[in-house]
Amino acid sequence: MNCVDCSIGQYKLREHCGVFGIAGSRHAALHAFRGLYALQHRGQEGAGIVSTDGKSLYEHKNLGLVNEVFKDKRIFEKLKGTFAIGHNRYSTAGETNYINVQPITINFKMGVISAVHNGNLTNAIQLKKGMEEDGSIFQTTSDTEVILHLLARAPSNELYLMIIDALKKINGAYSLLFLSPESLIAVRDPRGFRPLNIGKLGEAYIFASESCAFDILGAEYIRQLEPGELVVVDRNLNLQSFSPFPPRENRICIFEFIYFSRPDSTIFNTSVDKVRRSFGRQLAREHPASADIVISVPDSSNTAAVGYGQETGIPYDHGLIRNHYIGRTFIMPEQDIRDADVLIKYNPVREVLKGKRVVVVDDSIVRGTTSRKLVRMIRQGGAREVHFRVASPQIKYPCFYGIDTPTSQELIASQKTVEEIRAYLDADSLGYLSKEGMLSVKELPSVQYCTACFDGAYPV
Amino acid sequence: MNCVDCSIGQYKLREHCGVFGIAGSRHAALHAFRGLYALQHRGQEGAGIVSTDGKSLYEHKNLGLVNEVFKDKRIFEKLKGTFAIGHNRYSTAGETNYINVQPITINFKMGVISAVHNGNLTNAIQLKKGMEEDGSIFQTTSDTEVILHLLARAPSNELYLMIIDALKKINGAYSLLFLSPESLIAVRDPRGFRPLNIGKLGEAYIFASESCAFDILGAEYIRQLEPGELVVVDRNLNLQSFSPFPPRENRICIFEFIYFSRPDSTIFNTSVDKVRRSFGRQLAREHPASADIVISVPDSSNTAAVGYGQETGIPYDHGLIRNHYIGRTFIMPEQDIRDADVLIKYNPVREVLKGKRVVVVDDSIVRGTTSRKLVRMIRQGGAREVHFRVASPQIKYPCFYGIDTPTSQELIASQKTVEEIRAYLDADSLGYLSKEGMLSVKELPSVQYCTACFDGAYPV
Amino acid sequence: MNCVDCSIGQYKLREHCGVFGIAGSRHAALHAFRGLYALQHRGQEGAGIVSTDGKSLYEHKNLGLVNEVFKDKRIFEKLKGTFAIGHNRYSTAGETNYINVQPITINFKMGVISAVHNGNLTNAIQLKKGMEEDGSIFQTTSDTEVILHLLARAPSNELYLMIIDALKKINGAYSLLFLSPESLIAVRDPRGFRPLNIGKLGEAYIFASESCAFDILGAEYIRQLEPGELVVVDRNLNLQSFSPFPPRENRICIFEFIYFSRPDSTIFNTSVDKVRRSFGRQLAREHPASADIVISVPDSSNTAAVGYGQETGIPYDHGLIRNHYIGRTFIMPEQDIRDADVLIKYNPVREVLKGKRVVVVDDSIVRGTTSRKLVRMIRQGGAREVHFRVASPQIKYPCFYGIDTPTSQELIASQKTVEEIRAYLDADSLGYLSKEGMLSVKELPSVQYCTACFDGAYPV
Amino acid sequence: MNCVDCSIGQYKLREHCGVFGIAGSRHAALHAFRGLYALQHRGQEGAGIVSTDGKSLYEHKNLGLVNEVFKDKRIFEKLKGTFAIGHNRYSTAGETNYINVQPITINFKMGVISAVHNGNLTNAIQLKKGMEEDGSIFQTTSDTEVILHLLARAPSNELYLMIIDALKKINGAYSLLFLSPESLIAVRDPRGFRPLNIGKLGEAYIFASESCAFDILGAEYIRQLEPGELVVVDRNLNLQSFSPFPPRENRICIFEFIYFSRPDSTIFNTSVDKVRRSFGRQLAREHPASADIVISVPDSSNTAAVGYGQETGIPYDHGLIRNHYIGRTFIMPEQDIRDADVLIKYNPVREVLKGKRVVVVDDSIVRGTTSRKLVRMIRQGGAREVHFRVASPQIKYPCFYGIDTPTSQELIASQKTVEEIRAYLDADSLGYLSKEGMLSVKELPSVQYCTACFDGAYPV
Repeated sequence: MNCVDCSIGQYKLREHCGVFGIAGSRHAALHAFRGLYALQHRGQEGAGIVSTDGKSLYEHKNLGLVNEVFKDKRIFEKLKGTFAIGHNRYSTAGETNYINVQPITINFKMGVISAVHNGNLTNAIQLKKGMEEDGSIFQTTSDTEVILHLLARAPSNELYLMIIDALKKINGAYSLLFLSPESLIAVRDPRGFRPLNIGKLGEAYIFASESCAFDILGAEYIRQLEPGELVVVDRNLNLQSFSPFPPRENRICIFEFIYFSRPDSTIFNTSVDKVRRSFGRQLAREHPASADIVISVPDSSNTAAVGYGQETGIPYDHGLIRNHYIGRTFIMPEQDIRDADVLIKYNPVREVLKGKRVVVVDDSIVRGTTSRKLVRMIRQGGAREVHFRVASPQIKYPCFYGIDTPTSQELIASQKTVEEIRAYLDADSLGYLSKEGMLSVKELPSVQYCTACFDGAYPV
Repeated sequence: MNCVDCSIGQYKLREHCGVFGIAGSRHAALHAFRGLYALQHRGQEGAGIVSTDGKSLYEHKNLGLVNEVFKDKRIFEKLKGTFAIGHNRYSTAGETNYINVQPITINFKMGVISAVHNGNLTNAIQLKKGMEEDGSIFQTTSDTEVILHLLARAPSNELYLMIIDALKKINGAYSLLFLSPESLIAVRDPRGFRPLNIGKLGEAYIFASESCAFDILGAEYIRQLEPGELVVVDRNLNLQSFSPFPPRENRICIFEFIYFSRPDSTIFNTSVDKVRRSFGRQLAREHPASADIVISVPDSSNTAAVGYGQETGIPYDHGLIRNHYIGRTFIMPEQDIRDADVLIKYNPVREVLKGKRVVVVDDSIVRGTTSRKLVRMIRQGGAREVHFRVASPQIKYPCFYGIDTPTSQELIASQKTVEEIRAYLDADSLGYLSKEGMLSVKELPSVQYCTACFDGAYPV
Repeated sequence: MNCVDCSIGQYKLREHCGVFGIAGSRHAALHAFRGLYALQHRGQEGAGIVSTDGKSLYEHKNLGLVNEVFKDKRIFEKLKGTFAIGHNRYSTAGETNYINVQPITINFKMGVISAVHNGNLTNAIQLKKGMEEDGSIFQTTSDTEVILHLLARAPSNELYLMIIDALKKINGAYSLLFLSPESLIAVRDPRGFRPLNIGKLGEAYIFASESCAFDILGAEYIRQLEPGELVVVDRNLNLQSFSPFPPRENRICIFEFIYFSRPDSTIFNTSVDKVRRSFGRQLAREHPASADIVISVPDSSNTAAVGYGQETGIPYDHGLIRNHYIGRTFIMPEQDIRDADVLIKYNPVREVLKGKRVVVVDDSIVRGTTSRKLVRMIRQGGAREVHFRVASPQIKYPCFYGIDTPTSQELIASQKTVEEIRAYLDADSLGYLSKEGMLSVKELPSVQYCTACFDGAYPV
Repeated sequence: MNCVDCSIGQYKLREHCGVFGIAGSRHAALHAFRGLYALQHRGQEGAGIVSTDGKSLYEHKNLGLVNEVFKDKRIFEKLKGTFAIGHNRYSTAGETNYINVQPITINFKMGVISAVHNGNLTNAIQLKKGMEEDGSIFQTTSDTEVILHLLARAPSNELYLMIIDALKKINGAYSLLFLSPESLIAVRDPRGFRPLNIGKLGEAYIFASESCAFDILGAEYIRQLEPGELVVVDRNLNLQSFSPFPPRENRICIFEFIYFSRPDSTIFNTSVDKVRRSFGRQLAREHPASADIVISVPDSSNTAAVGYGQETGIPYDHGLIRNHYIGRTFIMPEQDIRDADVLIKYNPVREVLKGKRVVVVDDSIVRGTTSRKLVRMIRQGGAREVHFRVASPQIKYPCFYGIDTPTSQELIASQKTVEEIRAYLDADSLGYLSKEGMLSVKELPSVQYCTACFDGAYPV
């Protein structure tokens, strides 16, 4: 027998994290906990919160789901104060390492500071190498530590100016929150790769990767942090906004709309549901099908599948059931059951599929192995035809801005034509949403998007 | 702050368990583990497996989810042999007690035997009292122990005859599996309250509450165990079937179709999806609505909502998102957020609901508190009208056959009229599926059903 | 590598448990916890406490040390009431089983009762077999369950009379505590094998296997429970004493003085230290040695070694250091270090041993393997001569009264002569305390002792 | 009720750690585990091991006892390679913090390195402040991180030279082990405050704070690392020794002989037992007593008490029993039992003490609260007179070299005269070993000792 990581069962592109911050609530740490809980889909490997009462920082973090890390409610008695930041981490296989769990808290010349980070620096290795040459030491493998090193070396003597100094040295994607005893500082990179939003709960300011973290608190969505914007909230809850970076062409990560964010979230001032649904409609226009029903690969493709159904008039139905009790590891006898990993996660609804021509909509195809197993499952469930539709273009290039992608060799679309992929999946037809079609969707805010994973046009 | 059991957030009727058995596989315990995993929705408080190699019984059980109880794969080295039975337990509040986790294994005059049970005896207290008068002792509060006591006192001297002797003394609902070193014995009560199914995986026979436990193993569904049928599988994998009980009018639990079973399962030789969808259709015929969209309370109401949409032509959409990372307890500051418990579990998709006249379909209403919060959530999500539709009749009476129901006082339908409930929910309209309509659904197998929770007509 | 149970490193005879009871303290469960902690040496595999407030029984028990089982102080909020009983369990290898952890609590015709037991029934198997023939079931392998079965079948209708009825059917050793909502009942078998003592803390009555459990509470030692005495303490703290059994010749377990009890305890109304020290003195008279120092195998032989030194005038010293951080399992590379198991537990003090003629006093020899390793260790520590002295006679026969002994084949003294044992140990001389000498010690209370493990004269 | 840290029960001076290293064994990590287990008395709050196979470093560390941190033997499959270092940490109250558990592993310009440290830097704060001014960040509060920062900034380009550069900037006490993929480097500060020893096991070199870590492995003690010596062991097991620091007057920590080290250990090339025993003898010469028995406060004072007995001719006996099952926290009802904390740890042996004039020898007095309770306990145990003898001088000054001392206000000897202390303890007489007497002991190696805690003569 061997131990199979279930996520192998459905290889998805994975985000590195969700961030949350709150300034001005007597339940700061508890609200952070609940915000992180709403953002759990952005990272399941570790979680942490740092709070402050204006004097010290208080930290608790560990490997595990938010609910596991904070299961002892006495933790919240230690996480004192009215300001807090928190983080959900997804870490790459083999690196499930306590040392990388965020927030990362340091002592430096100005005192103590803690930071959380969503994104990826493209010049981290060079910066790290340069600082190591100067005699710096690194205890984690996270970019956040690189940023904190830069911050500590900044010539300015006000915290927010030091942060600006540091970030000017950085290339890549970042949505960052910093917490010091004096203030909470939020900042988003000038190209705006990753989302970061401002909300309000009574007097308190809240920051979160997605608005679903506001909803769980009954808080109000205000707006996104603009690309390149830096916001300081001080102990008196004065909020100041700065635009310290030279303007850059935006490079919003289109995958936030395709897959990462929850459909009930608002990001980039736009409803994810609205955009994702339009992707499904556009996919339907580009790749219609003669079929009896449209089904989704639950839950991430539900919205696009509904859009596909609305546009084509083919009825939407629930053809696959997903088991939600899945944990992080699953034990199975070796090789005795083909497709065992997919069987653990999904089950076909035979009564829905039997004798039908089925359109199955998925949000994306990465390596194709799961898709192939799903097609087989749907056929075994009784489907007469299986038409695979993908609500995003072919992923051909790895991401350097915070998404965990396999190598090009493992990206099926970088190795095979659409027809070859269809043959590999054993689908009756296969259609990908075109890049042009995707970007033409009018619900999409009219900014520039990063589409490097589709076209290799890396922003920097 | 206080610790709120999330299930309070959505008070649902709850089953007491799922059972699984396998005879004749070298991976018996591992398959039992996976089968229980597929049946996890039937009980989340504890899980256990007993296996046998024909010599001894080997047991592992504990409080927790299946994945938690069996997270150490070395457990399976101890659970030796080719036969195994397993159990998922749901236990009532305040009784989260190790001693009640099943299987229950005993020594008695014939040696050693283990049993798992889904159901509820209506004469357990009398039987227990009687046996106590005779000098028996009871170490658990479970019915299974009562059955084992009866078994041990049976006059016969063959195991399956002793089981028959014991069961003849019992009233109520039971789907039972017994494991001895010599055989696996499955039996279903003569009225057939709870499901129990036979499947096959290669040479091995499998027994499970629902067929989804076969699917996860790639096993084949054969048939249900008939009401009153007892099946013995010996070490040579000979299967013998007996009908030892006088025939009784069936009392299939209709709630298995309404809510308990997974829609992808086959129970009572019938697809749950097919029946549940027809309930939605019938509900639509009885209580149509002038509305723009139909949404479900995910995931248990999805199928009925689709059926409602199909019948009315109103498009089905995803208006509520469910957070699946929820654990068993959730910490929250007291009373600072109204409806916090529902916010933790659901979030409205504003873009879907905004300005719409919404039909929301739920499978049942128990106390009404969650439904009321959901209506408020859907309104706050922007819905112009909220039409609440329930794909089952009013629950007015407690269940004595294995379902955990609150007292009559807490059952809103036993206290209020439909109009009063509508007013309480603050819905624009409210419609329940009628009992007659429910039973008229042609997809429902034409047997007798237990509808006592709706009409108080208790079978015994 | 393999996992070695450290106790293998020093194979000692082992007791099955310690018992504690308290009646009439608002800190009943907490005091039980501390009493069990003081009795930890009598059983390290599991621990449990049951308390009562006069209405219900409240139970918490688990595998592990007392400190581990009760590490969460919130447990004590659940263990309500002013009466409590508790138990430390030692379980035989391979049976580390939750189901056998005591107290064992049952429902029976009189309501609910819980029991803890120190001892061993010699007719348990026959009683069990007989009751199984009558249709009884057994869920544990513990004698306590047998006693509770007998109790439940007793014809009387007062609890203490039922207990008497039950115990009249029993042969063997028992010191028992029963807790019902109405009373705490303590009883000791008519031969008095195992100790049981009464103490007082303010108004409260306390019962414990050894008086060290009184000391830790600052409670007062009153007296031992007499052999065959049964004591009832009711909710008004009235204590009644009964002598329900026909008088039997006493069979006090001499091993309680030799090894089991702590030297600071009073048992059988006698100081353990006083007796154990006299054993050392008598051993010195029987087997003097020409030596420079006397050392003990710490800590259980310290007292006897001091006595040996006092009698001979040879100075006592600390020649072996014991590591007390040892846990239950210890990982080591296979076979790379001879005597690794003993090295983990003991280390010689070279400066003490170097060039010396050493008398090492141990309380007993069971299999001889540890003794042999200790001799080698003392030699390697620099001793010129090693004279092994044993403060008890040769153990030749297994115990049937509650002590875990290996089979006769493994008892070195049943297989070899003293000279052969000396040769096996590679000691310069070897002397055992004679049975006659042991019994002649005037500090020993003048009652009859069970010396079956030395002479095979089993009491029954 | 409240939770009392048991160590409060006996406030002892506490060391910050034990270190262990091994180069050249296929069981490197397992041997490190066992070495740390033997050194457990030097630190109980956390433990860690880093190993290397010449390519990478592999780390496992956590809060808890060695046996707890490494209880899962699969950990050792990850700790690959033939070189390893390990650490036992004692952390000051309220700082039980994962981040400070050692080894600390960093990336720097030369690659990766890990370090463990026993000692304390007196200029850590200044060094830290200076480096912070230069832009460095600190993630822990440990001195080890300061050393690693200095190392990373060192101008040299060979690892051992960089270490020398770094250490030249440091004042204070250190016994350090560094592990890189290429080599294991051990170094001791020029004044030699803390012990560090070299041993051999077959081909492998071993380093440890005390020789008891060699004994548990069956390894051979070679010699101490000399003050100011740095040793490099490369992958070919070539050992090179360097003396890179200008010679300084030695400042061996005398408390290693008084209390910290195990008596069976050799440190500073000298048997701890021999020295500690002589302290007891010298104490006897300075402060004889008319008494019947000498007892120790077990176990740390055993050796000195034996020495006292040998010199005076008063027989040594076991008058106090220590409970060794004590864990890290202990729950007790508030204030219901005076001296409860001491009762949990010790129990008097009445038979030994009754009517006796007792000399009790303790190794040291810190705050006096425990001593006072012990005197009361011994009196209540029946002693007629209690003569308290302390085998070290009065502790009047805090330590800055790695020992956790309370503030001067809490050190009883800095606040009271000997007579006042005697009165506070309620002893019949009190005698401390004089500083001169202590240093005059001929078994003590003739080097300079740090006696700052007695006389305030801080070395730097």
